[in-house]
Amino acid sequence: MPAGELRHTESSAEVEGEAWVWAQIKAEARRDAEAEPALASYLYSTILSHSSLKRSLSFHLGNKLCSSTLLSTLLYDLFLNTFSSDPSLLAAAVADLRAAHERDPACVSFSHCLLNYKGFLACQAHRVAHKLWIQSRRPLALALHSRIADVFAVDIHPAARIGKGVLFDHATGVVVGETAVIGNNVSILHHVTLGGTGKAGGDRHPKIGDGVLIGASATILGNVKIGEGAKIGAGSVVLIDVPPRTTAVGNPARLVGGKERPSKLEDVPGESMDHTSFISEWSDYII
Amino acid sequence: MPAGELRHTESSAEVEGEAWVWAQIKAEARRDAEAEPALASYLYSTILSHSSLKRSLSFHLGNKLCSSTLLSTLLYDLFLNTFSSDPSLLAAAVADLRAAHERDPACVSFSHCLLNYKGFLACQAHRVAHKLWIQSRRPLALALHSRIADVFAVDIHPAARIGKGVLFDHATGVVVGETAVIGNNVSILHHVTLGGTGKAGGDRHPKIGDGVLIGASATILGNVKIGEGAKIGAGSVVLIDVPPRTTAVGNPARLVGGKERPSKLEDVPGESMDHTSFISEWSDYII
Amino acid sequence: MPAGELRHTESSAEVEGEAWVWAQIKAEARRDAEAEPALASYLYSTILSHSSLKRSLSFHLGNKLCSSTLLSTLLYDLFLNTFSSDPSLLAAAVADLRAAHERDPACVSFSHCLLNYKGFLACQAHRVAHKLWIQSRRPLALALHSRIADVFAVDIHPAARIGKGVLFDHATGVVVGETAVIGNNVSILHHVTLGGTGKAGGDRHPKIGDGVLIGASATILGNVKIGEGAKIGAGSVVLIDVPPRTTAVGNPARLVGGKERPSKLEDVPGESMDHTSFISEWSDYII
Amino acid sequence: MPAGELRHTESSAEVEGEAWVWAQIKAEARRDAEAEPALASYLYSTILSHSSLKRSLSFHLGNKLCSSTLLSTLLYDLFLNTFSSDPSLLAAAVADLRAAHERDPACVSFSHCLLNYKGFLACQAHRVAHKLWIQSRRPLALALHSRIADVFAVDIHPAARIGKGVLFDHATGVVVGETAVIGNNVSILHHVTLGGTGKAGGDRHPKIGDGVLIGASATILGNVKIGEGAKIGAGSVVLIDVPPRTTAVGNPARLVGGKERPSKLEDVPGESMDHTSFISEWSDYII
Amino acid sequence: MPAGELRHTESSAEVEGEAWVWAQIKAEARRDAEAEPALASYLYSTILSHSSLKRSLSFHLGNKLCSSTLLSTLLYDLFLNTFSSDPSLLAAAVADLRAAHERDPACVSFSHCLLNYKGFLACQAHRVAHKLWIQSRRPLALALHSRIADVFAVDIHPAARIGKGVLFDHATGVVVGETAVIGNNVSILHHVTLGGTGKAGGDRHPKIGDGVLIGASATILGNVKIGEGAKIGAGSVVLIDVPPRTTAVGNPARLVGGKERPSKLEDVPGESMDHTSFISEWSDYII
Amino acid sequence: MPAGELRHTESSAEVEGEAWVWAQIKAEARRDAEAEPALASYLYSTILSHSSLKRSLSFHLGNKLCSSTLLSTLLYDLFLNTFSSDPSLLAAAVADLRAAHERDPACVSFSHCLLNYKGFLACQAHRVAHKLWIQSRRPLALALHSRIADVFAVDIHPAARIGKGVLFDHATGVVVGETAVIGNNVSILHHVTLGGTGKAGGDRHPKIGDGVLIGASATILGNVKIGEGAKIGAGSVVLIDVPPRTTAVGNPARLVGGKERPSKLEDVPGESMDHTSFISEWSDYII
Repeated sequence: MPAGELRHTESSAEVEGEAWVWAQIKAEARRDAEAEPALASYLYSTILSHSSLKRSLSFHLGNKLCSSTLLSTLLYDLFLNTFSSDPSLLAAAVADLRAAHERDPACVSFSHCLLNYKGFLACQAHRVAHKLWIQSRRPLALALHSRIADVFAVDIHPAARIGKGVLFDHATGVVVGETAVIGNNVSILHHVTLGGTGKAGGDRHPKIGDGVLIGASATILGNVKIGEGAKIGAGSVVLIDVPPRTTAVGNPARLVGGKERPSKLEDVPGESMDHTSFISEWSDYII
Repeated sequence: MPAGELRHTESSAEVEGEAWVWAQIKAEARRDAEAEPALASYLYSTILSHSSLKRSLSFHLGNKLCSSTLLSTLLYDLFLNTFSSDPSLLAAAVADLRAAHERDPACVSFSHCLLNYKGFLACQAHRVAHKLWIQSRRPLALALHSRIADVFAVDIHPAARIGKGVLFDHATGVVVGETAVIGNNVSILHHVTLGGTGKAGGDRHPKIGDGVLIGASATILGNVKIGEGAKIGAGSVVLIDVPPRTTAVGNPARLVGGKERPSKLEDVPGESMDHTSFISEWSDYII
Repeated sequence: MPAGELRHTESSAEVEGEAWVWAQIKAEARRDAEAEPALASYLYSTILSHSSLKRSLSFHLGNKLCSSTLLSTLLYDLFLNTFSSDPSLLAAAVADLRAAHERDPACVSFSHCLLNYKGFLACQAHRVAHKLWIQSRRPLALALHSRIADVFAVDIHPAARIGKGVLFDHATGVVVGETAVIGNNVSILHHVTLGGTGKAGGDRHPKIGDGVLIGASATILGNVKIGEGAKIGAGSVVLIDVPPRTTAVGNPARLVGGKERPSKLEDVPGESMDHTSFISEWSDYII
Repeated sequence: MPAGELRHTESSAEVEGEAWVWAQIKAEARRDAEAEPALASYLYSTILSHSSLKRSLSFHLGNKLCSSTLLSTLLYDLFLNTFSSDPSLLAAAVADLRAAHERDPACVSFSHCLLNYKGFLACQAHRVAHKLWIQSRRPLALALHSRIADVFAVDIHPAARIGKGVLFDHATGVVVGETAVIGNNVSILHHVTLGGTGKAGGDRHPKIGDGVLIGASATILGNVKIGEGAKIGAGSVVLIDVPPRTTAVGNPARLVGGKERPSKLEDVPGESMDHTSFISEWSDYII
Repeated sequence: MPAGELRHTESSAEVEGEAWVWAQIKAEARRDAEAEPALASYLYSTILSHSSLKRSLSFHLGNKLCSSTLLSTLLYDLFLNTFSSDPSLLAAAVADLRAAHERDPACVSFSHCLLNYKGFLACQAHRVAHKLWIQSRRPLALALHSRIADVFAVDIHPAARIGKGVLFDHATGVVVGETAVIGNNVSILHHVTLGGTGKAGGDRHPKIGDGVLIGASATILGNVKIGEGAKIGAGSVVLIDVPPRTTAVGNPARLVGGKERPSKLEDVPGESMDHTSFISEWSDYII
Repeated sequence: MPAGELRHTESSAEVEGEAWVWAQIKAEARRDAEAEPALASYLYSTILSHSSLKRSLSFHLGNKLCSSTLLSTLLYDLFLNTFSSDPSLLAAAVADLRAAHERDPACVSFSHCLLNYKGFLACQAHRVAHKLWIQSRRPLALALHSRIADVFAVDIHPAARIGKGVLFDHATGVVVGETAVIGNNVSILHHVTLGGTGKAGGDRHPKIGDGVLIGASATILGNVKIGEGAKIGAGSVVLIDVPPRTTAVGNPARLVGGKERPSKLEDVPGESMDHTSFISEWSDYII
């Protein structure tokens, strides 16, 4: 797979937008439909029969999330109307597609992400639920939230705020609480919890800065601040603030390099996706 | 949201019963149906068209858990007959609804829990599976168990015994083994495992006392005893008994305050839901 | 339940094969259908109406994994054709059925595993996806992968290689990356991650030797080697190689007995399923 | 097939009742399930898993008549409650089963009729719709009417009154208007219309006496009286009263034997099902 | 039911339009939903959750006509886009609703017709198929035609041209051929055939003038002209032109009053729906 | 559309076989999929993803005829196995496709017939039901018969014998009794009944010779013989034998040209489809 930078270089901001990604997706789907007749029906119904990304995505989400009591036509309509009424939702979806494409080496194409990534799909459906939430259509937002949690095993409260260019990789078991905030260009692995502290209401969930990487099965609890460009090691239990561009690991999590002078990261882990470079340093620190 | 105690004070045991909760649920659904026409069909089919909570719950579970080989009508019948034959099942459901309402600040209404909480729904379906299990209708209990595990990603063995007033919060990924026992007024977060020790049969899973709180991603293995009112920190791996009203945290889990004289909790963590008050003490202890 | 060895003794390699297991399954299903009319329709459609294990399994997987855009008939055809074209797939399924039967005390019968174990079903569907992957039918393999991840919350990349006699117990939340390899007779509990190290492609996931046991919620990252017969404790975060027949526990994981002279296991943990015998030694080591 | 009289002789009124017919149906289904595994799932789900005829019939109608907007569970409940509240509905169903068994040589068993005869099923669903109609639950009655008309292509207005022991043979295309009345032991072939006269309301549809036989594609219009034991030839267009025990044929229909002294029938055509004995006489009369 | 004229008088062309009818439909559905909770879900999903008649109709047709290979979302989209692109389609639907309401005494409300009349629904779906046909999207038009024929047993070739204010009463079994034309304010009963003459292509089907009434089971074959305001008796077989305002009955059909000086009708039979006033005259003529 | 003879001339018996027709169907579907993206998913799933006509047909019938209690996978398997075991069934299907293509000017392509003609589809499903019937798998044959009657409103008893090259045009409402026989190259319009005479068993239904044409709504009752090449006028009621190459019309039907010296037809009406050429002669005869 070509490196992310290359593509950045090749295409201006304009061509990189929705139209360019949608053209890529259609081209990929056309190629796959030709090569694999058994999949062609699926590719036509989900992608090739649609005139735009928002229609394709609304169709796919409507069919994925429908149930016998929430019909696909109702959901399709809801998604299409919401995407149409707020273009920022689709821009965020495009940024998320690009994020998966650039950061996940297993992501072979944009269409693969659009069709198959439960983290991507759960996140787009969440964006719609969040829009409904802030329009005070809360029962509908919560019903949608419930369907996302059932179908994708991804449980993001509709009030949670999520930036652009976010990658939920694998995504199964992710739980994001009501007052959590996730910045731009964040990468979050599966089984990650951004949880609360108890039964009191109010602002009680983590705030995740831009460019943060949160490893698999990390649990972050309470209204703590994970500074921008920080990295949370897999399996960590984080109950404290983590400064920008530092790494927290362990249960309970401690800063790599020590609390006083933690090691500073040079790249943006949410984009570089380097999960394990801290190992040697960590080992030194702990044992 | 008003505090749980307030409601306790306001309502006697009688009005707090099934009838009162069902009346609340209908009123909430009616209000939501009026405010949100797009959801009204859903609310009428799941709640407002039914004459009782047990019918509503049987309908909802039947439609959630059905598959092409286990039809909704069969499951509806099974749920309705089982709920009708043993009133304690519905009393437990009502206690669970109240538990969610009181303990989870994100729970905006009883109907929200009834319709949307996968932990609540999985638990009620489990109660029916458990009833079948103790009636020696084991293949049917296991088939139901399998549907619950597929649909909600909640895997509770039908032989496991669960008390009343239990909150499975978020619930995705919960695994409860065959000989596990969960007391009353327990709160269990997502990804919690109450697991066994190996391939030998017999009594091999944890026993959770009344009022226990188990944090997200905690793993408790073997026939260990978690004393009443104990608290298990998020991400802990517990392989030992935990005395009543103490806190165990870490991997492997240790008692906060030390093995010899652990700190004693003053409230009931399963009800107070205080996940993080041990942090300062824990940090002192470990680092 | 009788011990696994007893059954081994009773039956020669020949009778233990597919025919014998299929005959057992049919006998179990017939017994259950007679005892439980409410389940008989399910048992006939999934097992008793079929002339072979591969047809039964193809039918069951087709109906479990289908969606409104990937029809059950298409999937049934795909499974049946793939199982028919490569007999090793079915031999592996039989070995997996036997593994569950022998190692999991909650597995009451072969038919219980065939019908209800999401780990078993996800693994068999993965074998078909993997076959498609190595035939360069990648878009179809990835679409199947996506359905498995949605329906079972088990996310195994179609390129991952998996041996025979593998038990995915409970299975919810398992994530296995693209270049991971899992040997024969391995047992893996739920929420286990065999993950990568970052955004670079190439060989970046764990290699799990024969007979390994990986406890619940363990996270193993990077191209590390877990030696044959090793044991990974529940909740461990493993970033290093683990020698054969040793035990790694903790976050970060360390070898029980110490890095230099780790304790050696005498049985095969992937088969004995002993999750907790290291507890006393571990406690000594750490505290 | 043994003659109808023989069975009458063999069984007293008591054994001929619902219990006896239901026992027959179960025995037939059990025999067929054993002989044809491919059908066993169907027979168990529709018949053998049920404890009574009314449950079996409610299940079967619920699953046949449901749609994405009228769920099977809702219809099952509606049928079961209505059959339970008025035993005469089930008594009529039993009489209809016996009628098909006795009069239709292609009816090989009671279970064949119960499962496969669209005329039988449409009639039983109509009885429920009629019950709703006279309880002034008209919108629900009409919605059910619409489903019957869609699914079976049998269009009986819910206000129409229908006796017992009625056979709708083949049934496709039958139309029965709002004020029509059909007596006991009537046999009606497919494409028969009992239609109105225009746009004025009021009593405007045919009244069909006991024991009448109406041949295929006959059209009877207006508030005319077809006397008991009369026979209407296939393809006839009847716009006039037909006296008891006479035969009307042709377009427009005339009485066989002439208007003044029509030939009198000796048997009950609705039971003997003799469609064509009038041919020679008719030919004489017309040509 | 009040007479049709009264309503005409009461409402100007403007209030009689779509807005007025849609308001009526919503009011009826609201009343029925309150009176019948079991139907409320259905009424909300089909009518009350929609913002316009075209959305309601598109939703209802999409869900009625979908199949496992033609998804409801695709059809919903197709209907909605087509209705939106050509307002004359919806104007015709409104005229048809009014026609049913005025001419059919069994039509208790506009919503009853919208939801339950297969003739109305088949006709609206046909209008969309016809639109596709004249846009040269013939394969799609024919696929839609096939679904209409399966679901409603109404078989109208997508090339057939149909006017406004048309009532297909009962509708089961109607067949209308490729080159048939049906004028405005026509009423056609069930089992009516407007058929061709053979295997030669070209203009080969009947042309039905404005205001014609065609009785049940009438068969009209060939490129014949049924003059405006003519009446075709039930069961007639018409192979000849029928002059305006005359009545044809019988098999083969002849003009009432004789070929030379047929009786002239004074009202418009397609609107007055008088099916049988010719009886006495006919009897005189024939016998 | 080119005339039928031209195609006969162009293609030898060999190229006209299944392979040629299947190639045509695929080419047509490919062309249509390209021209109409909204239909491409449908065309791929029903035709283009299949490797043979028998797989395509089995898939399409399985999805059309399935219900919640008779799954599509079961039916697909049943159709595929039956078509595979008896090649004459598919040869008959090909002959029927050709018949529709040649005789029906509204049949624009082979794929149109394969996908959309309910008469064609009902006939092929009947052939499978008939095969099951003669293998003494009667309950399964009757269950299939019931599904065909529900879905297509075409009611052909599974014991009825039907030749090749048969066209059921429009098909809605066709009823064919148990002992009926239909020869080769017969064309039968909608609402045609080949019915019995009463409740006695035995040989009691019509025998239709080769090349017969039966017009819409014709009713033929009893064990009468319709000689080869005969024509039955639309709406006729036939209770007598009809000699070869003669025309019967009317109610009751009489021979055109008179009983003694009926007019002889020169072409084969079942192939020429000339429905109305007898009109002038008939008129002369009757009036």
